[in-house]
Amino acid sequence: MAERTKFILDEADMPARWYNVVPDLPEPPPPPLHPGTREPIGPDDLAPLFPQALIAQEVTTERYVDIPEEVLDVYRLWRPSPLFRARRLEKALGTPARIYYKYEGVSPVGSHKPNTAVPQAFYNAAEGVTRLTTETGAGQWGSALAFACATFGLECEVWQVRASYDQKPYRKLMMETFGATVHPSPSELTESGRAILAADPGSTGSLGIAISEAVEQAAQAENTRYALGSVLNHVLLHQTIIGEEALKQFELAGDTPDVLVGCTGGGSNFGGLAFPFLREKLAGRMDPVIRAVEPAACPTLTRGKYAYDFGDTAGLTPLLKMHTLGHDFIPDPIHAGGLRYHGMSPLISHIYELGLIEALAIGQEDCFAAGVQFARTEGIIPAPEPTHALAACIQEALRCKETGEEKVILTALCGHAHLDLPAYGAYLAGDISDHALPDETLAKSLAGLP
Amino acid sequence: MAERTKFILDEADMPARWYNVVPDLPEPPPPPLHPGTREPIGPDDLAPLFPQALIAQEVTTERYVDIPEEVLDVYRLWRPSPLFRARRLEKALGTPARIYYKYEGVSPVGSHKPNTAVPQAFYNAAEGVTRLTTETGAGQWGSALAFACATFGLECEVWQVRASYDQKPYRKLMMETFGATVHPSPSELTESGRAILAADPGSTGSLGIAISEAVEQAAQAENTRYALGSVLNHVLLHQTIIGEEALKQFELAGDTPDVLVGCTGGGSNFGGLAFPFLREKLAGRMDPVIRAVEPAACPTLTRGKYAYDFGDTAGLTPLLKMHTLGHDFIPDPIHAGGLRYHGMSPLISHIYELGLIEALAIGQEDCFAAGVQFARTEGIIPAPEPTHALAACIQEALRCKETGEEKVILTALCGHAHLDLPAYGAYLAGDISDHALPDETLAKSLAGLP
Repeated sequence: MAERTKFILDEADMPARWYNVVPDLPEPPPPPLHPGTREPIGPDDLAPLFPQALIAQEVTTERYVDIPEEVLDVYRLWRPSPLFRARRLEKALGTPARIYYKYEGVSPVGSHKPNTAVPQAFYNAAEGVTRLTTETGAGQWGSALAFACATFGLECEVWQVRASYDQKPYRKLMMETFGATVHPSPSELTESGRAILAADPGSTGSLGIAISEAVEQAAQAENTRYALGSVLNHVLLHQTIIGEEALKQFELAGDTPDVLVGCTGGGSNFGGLAFPFLREKLAGRMDPVIRAVEPAACPTLTRGKYAYDFGDTAGLTPLLKMHTLGHDFIPDPIHAGGLRYHGMSPLISHIYELGLIEALAIGQEDCFAAGVQFARTEGIIPAPEPTHALAACIQEALRCKETGEEKVILTALCGHAHLDLPAYGAYLAGDISDHALPDETLAKSLAGLP
Repeated sequence: MAERTKFILDEADMPARWYNVVPDLPEPPPPPLHPGTREPIGPDDLAPLFPQALIAQEVTTERYVDIPEEVLDVYRLWRPSPLFRARRLEKALGTPARIYYKYEGVSPVGSHKPNTAVPQAFYNAAEGVTRLTTETGAGQWGSALAFACATFGLECEVWQVRASYDQKPYRKLMMETFGATVHPSPSELTESGRAILAADPGSTGSLGIAISEAVEQAAQAENTRYALGSVLNHVLLHQTIIGEEALKQFELAGDTPDVLVGCTGGGSNFGGLAFPFLREKLAGRMDPVIRAVEPAACPTLTRGKYAYDFGDTAGLTPLLKMHTLGHDFIPDPIHAGGLRYHGMSPLISHIYELGLIEALAIGQEDCFAAGVQFARTEGIIPAPEPTHALAACIQEALRCKETGEEKVILTALCGHAHLDLPAYGAYLAGDISDHALPDETLAKSLAGLP
């Protein structure tokens, strides 16, 4: 009998609750502040944008939140997701390390995003909301929300950054196939969009502008709310199903991770895998090193400042205490669009400050090299975002080769690259550079903190 | 406990042998003929193109062929593939039918093609071949072979029809990421290509021309062989792992199919799912209706002639007894590129003549409508090819709604549409028509039979 490649949970063993790490932390994270008063915001401040159930989850101090049966029913279309042992990659590296990856690319849109899009759509529908608005860059989050809205009969309206809308039509077509309406942003449909177009008719947009348009619509229109794909506590909460499944799968494998690596943009993929393992670490049941990996072009944790800042470029959101490069920082156009965020989940920032996790930044050339090696051994072409985790995983495995240590490495493979293949084309053609962030640019951007 | 959505086999239960339907048929299929002598061809005629192991499988009369451990080891990267119960689609249709789909889109390239690409690469490598050539249209087969060659250290050289090479760059990028070299066809690299370009410098190519280039290279170059992705017996043999798995999964589900539907182009997806069920039917252990579905634009089984014809447009192959629209037939440019073949697997043609399977043709508008309904309920956007099977499946389920019959329907979902999203864009924009084949065009094409 050959050694196992995949560790698959039965549907009946799929976790039925999400894990909230907050009550297990040695101290609670600092609260969001109102930008005018600089006082902590309350639930009422969020009511125009989110349904009550999600606001309650955002501030809950309960350790576990039950997953509604209606959400589990949709999760079953692809969950539990597989945990793989990367035997062919291990062999290619010649490492004594055992490498595992938890693969979220089996979801309908090819990433971890539906784990939160589905409950967000469910709770909104349950409270009588009929339409959700959101922004999207390359389109991973927008397509996840479009799918989720299709399953609960909600309208979905997405403002997609004009540059991506024009250059990457596949994600837009996916959103439309799921029934969503997609507008290029800036659009003539909102005051925010019209103001931008008046000043610059050829604007190709930004995530900050797209957020403004989606938020403006949600706040003004009937039965309409807004949905966000990362950063906030309730989003990370929903993603913990990844780590809860992985813990059960490690039991099946009879193994325990020594090192856990995940890429971080807004933090939802990383937190989703890491938080349940952090619970085990805090309880003394295992002791993995937990390592966040970010792009050298957008090194929020490793080079940003831990300070109160806006979550969006235009300054419409509450102030969040987080590692930030400054809310008007625009990262160079690297291919891992999901990691190009000036800030970081406040919860992950807090945990990093507590010294419970590590962080490092890697340039995208090394990341694509890791992605190609992974594709040619394991068969899955990883999305540009998780190639950052894979590059760190391969670094660790090669260190083990030198030292002879048989470490167990777990990496979060949060999506595939089917709709990102032009990025691999650019890498293979030699048209990729690291875009490491210059000190002067960072200093200038941090000077604009509120 | 909720009713099950997925039926997952353990790796240990993955079938370890392929099934050859030939010895179970009431009479053997007619042999391929040499086009000059019209005598049956022998193994030597195929030796310049294929390794001995595959030639032996092409003509074997053994009921089972063991799958080599090296091939099983690669299969485990994605196999066993899931069998789903389409509960959400059933509910949307309001049908008493129970709909199951066997999903092959979990493979590295998103279709069933690696099931044969992997053993083909393995047997070639085992016999000292160092390079494989092939043709590809839209690129499903080319990317499967590129992946398979990466796993066994073979060079892979693909001639891709120029029109697809220029218009659909994502599949080319996938092939290159797996390490293959991709040439637009016609190319200056072969005599066949140069002849075409001399006559028509702007030629956008055809599958027939691309086959000629790949075959010419394989026959001339050192340690080089050719690989084909459908039609031949050994290809269908490798695909039977789909049906063998599905049989075990129906045991898990405690159900038995009454109707089995699959789309047919060259026949490998259909045969792969259907043959093991046909064995059970011939042995009297179950009695499913087995139904092949083809596009109205290329209705090989339903309107073609059962006759000896060439497998390629240029007339370089042996003569194959099959349902054909004539080897110089060029179907209208429908979006299901994998179903645009003038002929049919001789084995499936023979089985159809024996009355063991049914066939019907459906226009692509109905197929895309089925694809969109499936995406919005089940979450998977089906490739244009299997939307034909889904359209037939939905027809059957709606008949059950009228009659009240609780039929069990099994459909082959052979791939997803991530790299075919522009086809859905065209459908949603109303730019799709059926391209039903006119009688005169068919009559003219059939007049050219050898």
